[in-house]
Amino acid sequence: MTGPLAAALAGDPADPDLVRRARAWLSRTFEPADADVVRWVGRTGPVAAVRALLAGTAPEGARRRAAPRAGTDRSLDDLEAAARTGARLVVPEDDEWPRTALHCLDVALHERGPTGDRTTALVPPLALWVRGRPRLDELTDRSVAVVGSRASSPYGDHVAAELAAGLAERGWTTVSGAATGIDAAAHRGALAAGSPTVAVLACGIDRAYPQSHQRLLARILDDGLVVSEWPPGCAPLGHRFLVRNRLIAALSRGTVVVEAAARSGSLATANRARDLGRPVMAVPGPVTAATSVGVHQLLRADERVRLVTSAAEVVEAVGRLGDDLAEQPVGEGTARDDLGEVARRVLDACPVRVGVPPERLAAIAGCAELDVLRVLPVLELHDLVERVTGGWRITRP
Amino acid sequence: MTGPLAAALAGDPADPDLVRRARAWLSRTFEPADADVVRWVGRTGPVAAVRALLAGTAPEGARRRAAPRAGTDRSLDDLEAAARTGARLVVPEDDEWPRTALHCLDVALHERGPTGDRTTALVPPLALWVRGRPRLDELTDRSVAVVGSRASSPYGDHVAAELAAGLAERGWTTVSGAATGIDAAAHRGALAAGSPTVAVLACGIDRAYPQSHQRLLARILDDGLVVSEWPPGCAPLGHRFLVRNRLIAALSRGTVVVEAAARSGSLATANRARDLGRPVMAVPGPVTAATSVGVHQLLRADERVRLVTSAAEVVEAVGRLGDDLAEQPVGEGTARDDLGEVARRVLDACPVRVGVPPERLAAIAGCAELDVLRVLPVLELHDLVERVTGGWRITRP
Repeated sequence: MTGPLAAALAGDPADPDLVRRARAWLSRTFEPADADVVRWVGRTGPVAAVRALLAGTAPEGARRRAAPRAGTDRSLDDLEAAARTGARLVVPEDDEWPRTALHCLDVALHERGPTGDRTTALVPPLALWVRGRPRLDELTDRSVAVVGSRASSPYGDHVAAELAAGLAERGWTTVSGAATGIDAAAHRGALAAGSPTVAVLACGIDRAYPQSHQRLLARILDDGLVVSEWPPGCAPLGHRFLVRNRLIAALSRGTVVVEAAARSGSLATANRARDLGRPVMAVPGPVTAATSVGVHQLLRADERVRLVTSAAEVVEAVGRLGDDLAEQPVGEGTARDDLGEVARRVLDACPVRVGVPPERLAAIAGCAELDVLRVLPVLELHDLVERVTGGWRITRP
Repeated sequence: MTGPLAAALAGDPADPDLVRRARAWLSRTFEPADADVVRWVGRTGPVAAVRALLAGTAPEGARRRAAPRAGTDRSLDDLEAAARTGARLVVPEDDEWPRTALHCLDVALHERGPTGDRTTALVPPLALWVRGRPRLDELTDRSVAVVGSRASSPYGDHVAAELAAGLAERGWTTVSGAATGIDAAAHRGALAAGSPTVAVLACGIDRAYPQSHQRLLARILDDGLVVSEWPPGCAPLGHRFLVRNRLIAALSRGTVVVEAAARSGSLATANRARDLGRPVMAVPGPVTAATSVGVHQLLRADERVRLVTSAAEVVEAVGRLGDDLAEQPVGEGTARDDLGEVARRVLDACPVRVGVPPERLAAIAGCAELDVLRVLPVLELHDLVERVTGGWRITRP
């Protein structure tokens, strides 16, 4: 282990500065949604993972994929460039990390086993570059993705803007991709209603893509957020849009497709939302319009896709989840008694002092790792366990 | 039993002329969809029923409902008036009776027990006044109802006409109500494609309602049919449209709603089709159009309602029924072996010479009348039983 990065990463691997530096480096070294890499970093921890890569002791797959970019270290430059534009790197170890929203990707990663197609793989991000003032977890907590064709019709633009404005009035944040067409109309509708909105980009948070959206992105940043998995300066390469789409789906409680031609990229976002178990909604249009063909195909192909015509109907569809959660009784002293059998076993497996990773908890509790991943959020919600570097432990008083 | 009608009905109650005369009289004496009356006529036979009414020996309910009109006999005038306009009275005893299509109403009548709301009651017609050359059973065999708002939009008119033309190209007949708006557009679309179409009216088959559709109805009669439950000259009274709608639903393999405002009458037709177990389809439109609000409500309210955007998709939805039937193996010598237990018992209960009504078959076979009604079409399909005056018997070689 040599060089300035290796030196910088010497010290306590749980040190937040070291963690952030390591994840910044990983964020530039690996393309997002690489299931093997994300699994390995999750097991090893980010600082140890970078040390292993620098020392040549990382698993062969990770070393091979890191090779093209591992020779340089731009992590400090990236963090500084982000800071200059009012951005920060939010990492899973932060309070701000949208843990609840992205948990579905953790589950999906472990459910799918060995990696599938990288462009659509449901894999959690290694870190998120976030530009803007609000906290990412808070702004996305009650949010809906409104997506659709770039080549939208005036009808689609109108409906997207009305939906976003209606969601804003009901206290819901609109998440979209800042593209031309439906995305832009949705962001503008939210802004017109005086509500913050979240743009998830397929390029660096310091870049305007398309160029013509420079002013729109500036207005989004007044009260909202611009988010990306790619470090500052990164270009919006074609394949990155599909990777980005899974994040739009994961960060929001549900996805609405307003307009989509046949084989539109926005249908991919809808499919990701469906794969993640999130409500998928679609706004119909004239059957004579090519811009609605994909939407109608979506509605015909899957009866779980809900036809919606207004913001009220969208909230009805995504609000249920919240209501259902709210209905779960969380009695003060009886939280433990309300738990299911697996949850109790996992709780008993949690150590008091050092955090242990889910796979270790699974081994101790004698249940599947997937079950552990499913019950941990419930235990966290009940304030029975907490996440610390290295994994999970019993919440300290 | 006195008077010229009583004299005319003297003789064999199975005589086709007597049956037609009796049903013509019943058709004017009772408003359609009166469950008690239709049940009673079904049990008694039409000639005996009229005789009983004239003699004052009919059940009290039938007598009471017949009272306002039973004093006059216009049956011969009605049959002659019909003949003058190229129309005929088709009765359940005729080969032309659309037995298979209307069987769902027989089942619904017996399933629902004591009568419900008369305007929407799923009750088979006592007879049908039919104007035009084709056979009613043949023309409605592969048919789809295309219905919608009277106050349609140019978009709706266009889609209805395109659907009907597309159905025509695929060999399917369009059934509708000859009203302004979507109905007219559907008929016109079929005519433009050179295909016969069926108009089911809420007034006499010799009347044009609306008046402005005189030419449209004349064009429909070139190759198609105009059908009504009401005798010649009857006015399109408000409540008759809802009664008529069940017939549109029953005569066709499925119902497509093209445009419907909230609480549109065409939604009632869709509901009747659904109640009868027929596929219900709906064409979406702009969510900004009041003319599509009812359609979108329909699609949202019931996941069995299928979104369709083209004639091909409509045929896919209604064609299945036919395919499913076609797949049932009907081996020559083994037809009997393929039958279910109830069907075999009903077959054994059927007499060889005289027909007996379903309730008698139920008593002999020791099963529910509803079960008898369900298996009789299967037995008829296998050519094992045939319908004759008075009921069913074993098919004669």
